[in-house]
Amino acid sequence: MAKKIKVLVWNEFRHEKYEESAKNMYPKGIHGTIRDFLSNETDFEVRTATLDDPQQGISEELLKDIDVLIYWGHNYHDEVRDEAVEIISKRIIHDGMGFIPLHSSHESKIFRKLMGTTCLLKWREANEKERLWLIEPGHPIANGIPEYIEIEHEETYGERFDIPTPDTLLFISWFDGGEVFRSGCCYIRGMGKIFYFRPGHEICGAYYIPEIQQVIKNAVRWAAPSNGPIPILGKARPFPRT
Amino acid sequence: MAKKIKVLVWNEFRHEKYEESAKNMYPKGIHGTIRDFLSNETDFEVRTATLDDPQQGISEELLKDIDVLIYWGHNYHDEVRDEAVEIISKRIIHDGMGFIPLHSSHESKIFRKLMGTTCLLKWREANEKERLWLIEPGHPIANGIPEYIEIEHEETYGERFDIPTPDTLLFISWFDGGEVFRSGCCYIRGMGKIFYFRPGHEICGAYYIPEIQQVIKNAVRWAAPSNGPIPILGKARPFPRT
Amino acid sequence: MAKKIKVLVWNEFRHEKYEESAKNMYPKGIHGTIRDFLSNETDFEVRTATLDDPQQGISEELLKDIDVLIYWGHNYHDEVRDEAVEIISKRIIHDGMGFIPLHSSHESKIFRKLMGTTCLLKWREANEKERLWLIEPGHPIANGIPEYIEIEHEETYGERFDIPTPDTLLFISWFDGGEVFRSGCCYIRGMGKIFYFRPGHEICGAYYIPEIQQVIKNAVRWAAPSNGPIPILGKARPFPRT
Amino acid sequence: MAKKIKVLVWNEFRHEKYEESAKNMYPKGIHGTIRDFLSNETDFEVRTATLDDPQQGISEELLKDIDVLIYWGHNYHDEVRDEAVEIISKRIIHDGMGFIPLHSSHESKIFRKLMGTTCLLKWREANEKERLWLIEPGHPIANGIPEYIEIEHEETYGERFDIPTPDTLLFISWFDGGEVFRSGCCYIRGMGKIFYFRPGHEICGAYYIPEIQQVIKNAVRWAAPSNGPIPILGKARPFPRT
Repeated sequence: MAKKIKVLVWNEFRHEKYEESAKNMYPKGIHGTIRDFLSNETDFEVRTATLDDPQQGISEELLKDIDVLIYWGHNYHDEVRDEAVEIISKRIIHDGMGFIPLHSSHESKIFRKLMGTTCLLKWREANEKERLWLIEPGHPIANGIPEYIEIEHEETYGERFDIPTPDTLLFISWFDGGEVFRSGCCYIRGMGKIFYFRPGHEICGAYYIPEIQQVIKNAVRWAAPSNGPIPILGKARPFPRT
Repeated sequence: MAKKIKVLVWNEFRHEKYEESAKNMYPKGIHGTIRDFLSNETDFEVRTATLDDPQQGISEELLKDIDVLIYWGHNYHDEVRDEAVEIISKRIIHDGMGFIPLHSSHESKIFRKLMGTTCLLKWREANEKERLWLIEPGHPIANGIPEYIEIEHEETYGERFDIPTPDTLLFISWFDGGEVFRSGCCYIRGMGKIFYFRPGHEICGAYYIPEIQQVIKNAVRWAAPSNGPIPILGKARPFPRT
Repeated sequence: MAKKIKVLVWNEFRHEKYEESAKNMYPKGIHGTIRDFLSNETDFEVRTATLDDPQQGISEELLKDIDVLIYWGHNYHDEVRDEAVEIISKRIIHDGMGFIPLHSSHESKIFRKLMGTTCLLKWREANEKERLWLIEPGHPIANGIPEYIEIEHEETYGERFDIPTPDTLLFISWFDGGEVFRSGCCYIRGMGKIFYFRPGHEICGAYYIPEIQQVIKNAVRWAAPSNGPIPILGKARPFPRT
Repeated sequence: MAKKIKVLVWNEFRHEKYEESAKNMYPKGIHGTIRDFLSNETDFEVRTATLDDPQQGISEELLKDIDVLIYWGHNYHDEVRDEAVEIISKRIIHDGMGFIPLHSSHESKIFRKLMGTTCLLKWREANEKERLWLIEPGHPIANGIPEYIEIEHEETYGERFDIPTPDTLLFISWFDGGEVFRSGCCYIRGMGKIFYFRPGHEICGAYYIPEIQQVIKNAVRWAAPSNGPIPILGKARPFPRT
């Protein structure tokens, strides 16, 4: 039997505790909603953690047993302790843990550290229509996805998105108000795979849309560790001459 | 004194001869309009050629003296003789001639040959608004370009655009009718640089817009040959052991 | 139960019929050897075909039932009929069939067509040592692969290799005689995934090396179709305004 | 008259002060040697700075007048104050200053910050032969460069080099002792262009080799700011509907 992919869904979980509109939209928290739809898959084993958990829900102990980390943060990026950022970064770069930052996590400490740029962008909260166009239909994350995904109401993000060129650009969003955005971005960093995925404002309902759920499921499978060799770095002897 | 960049603007030149609306928009032909604005640059030396010229305006003799080829074709791609396609391809791949296919040239024989894919896309003629968002403001082709360029009325192109992932993606277009499109795509192929640039429907006036002109001028300078070494290919002797 | 990946191993199969040294090295033909080690995998269903088969072993009928095509050709590329090249290309670009050209297939009609460049390189037959360094240990094709793979005696290939920049560069080879070579190159073209893999001279024994076999097994799984949407290309209506 | 490119050559400058072998090789310091050969170019205006200068030779005041920063560091990366790293990073990302880290600068704070990975590698000091193969002869940095550059004695670096996939891979090194290395790596980060170039051990003489000098000159021109638009990031209003 194939080994299950161990997923941790980490959520800031403040909006859904303290703001009526977010609480109404995601009564179980965003992490709870994501956990629920992932748990239907027989090849996943899913846990959740939040910012207000002990150790902010992030420790070496916990992460060493995680294959893929899904991450949602927004207003409290600065509260995340630097040690947690180091732990996550090391798990990705050294050990190949997959990392799926969602939506406003573009501005999280960990994503900015991994990218090396500001990761800033244009934005507004105007309940605009978003249409995510699939750019690489041959990619594993395109499995079962239609040509485009529509979200009736979403927060708007717009270019320039200050990120490194993605290794693969999967989705480009069209917004009613006139912007475009690189909404699905694949990277390899060290041993780890990263997939930034844009949708998911806390008072809109993107994570209830089956196609959005399918993208995240596909991304988990794509981002799971590949079982390649840990590179031996540092001082090295020459090979014998033949 | 620096050597001038020798530019050939090649145009199918049928719409502007035989169709009233295109003739009115581009009385000198699209090639004439492009030649005019390029000729203002002191570092360019510009010529034009068209499909109905002797040898369809494309011969080894002519191209061996050209640094950058700008190319506009649409309804008569199939008329272009295969020999001409070979001549252009060889000049790009072997000799490093720059190549700037415009608009409907996405479906030209030469572009499809260079890309290896169908280069098909979605399209409609609906006079929609196009907004080209600049994705890489640090790239040489971004010189003097604003954050976005608006074209009031244009033919619409939409993804999926069946091309290889660009080496650099410079522009993404937003269209009024709901599509997005990768409108500025840089490639290196062999010794040559290629820049596909989307705008330029024959009855809209994109080539009169100063920012569009600036993109094309920048692209000519970027695509000019780099004077690197011609690789020696084929059978090779080993290096002596030390 | 998961669907099996249907693999076709196509081989020119002339060296191993008519040349003693190749026949001794691969008595079942290169295709037979590859089939044998792939057939140990329970998720593969493997067939073979060769140039001297009816229809050169390539027809629409046959390929429409194939998920991944492994391809070895060398001295008789020109004999492959253009129709066969079209059939393979269409299956890759339109339908997402995976394609794994091996060794001297770099110069095959089909690979050159897909790449758009000459695909030429430096080479010599000098029984040199090759050491393939793994560049992206986080990639799925790195599964179970060591840091480097050594081949005691191989034909030498050297840069410049006239190909488009790979979407992902997986292996770089070091050769005893002083060259380097991009030996493992991933591309997406249309709906299909392509993995060029260098080793496999007909009189050396690369395909008997377990790590080389493992790379090819990994590549088959990586290149299998992703079940993304077939893009709808051509004339398209605008979306209704909201 | 075209504006000159303002170059700052920054050097740790400890080896050449305190170690006999490095002092003998570079009596003016590595920065002095690089300054000398760059100063022959009429389009460059060159300054130098070192770690033991006031403010470690790096301040906002100084950098705001610099177009391209060449950087050599090795044993004292940790001494570079975090404020200096922030200043350099901001000038690159926000303002488009070019950045050319050389040799052991792969492990500098600033390069690691920009890359987001460990940037570690294999190495040894064994006076081996290095042969840098040019992989993209059509790139501007290939101007006037031969197919390969040989360095008789150099420190050896080997893969795995833990960096993000370069936007363009220009050079791959072959080393006598059996390793390969991605020796010339182009990146765009924010508004800025980055070119990592491998050669330059403090007791070998790489910076006296004309072809190595030519690569650095080309890289300065390539990395100079492109005069694109500073993106407007943050809250944005929708465009008016038409």
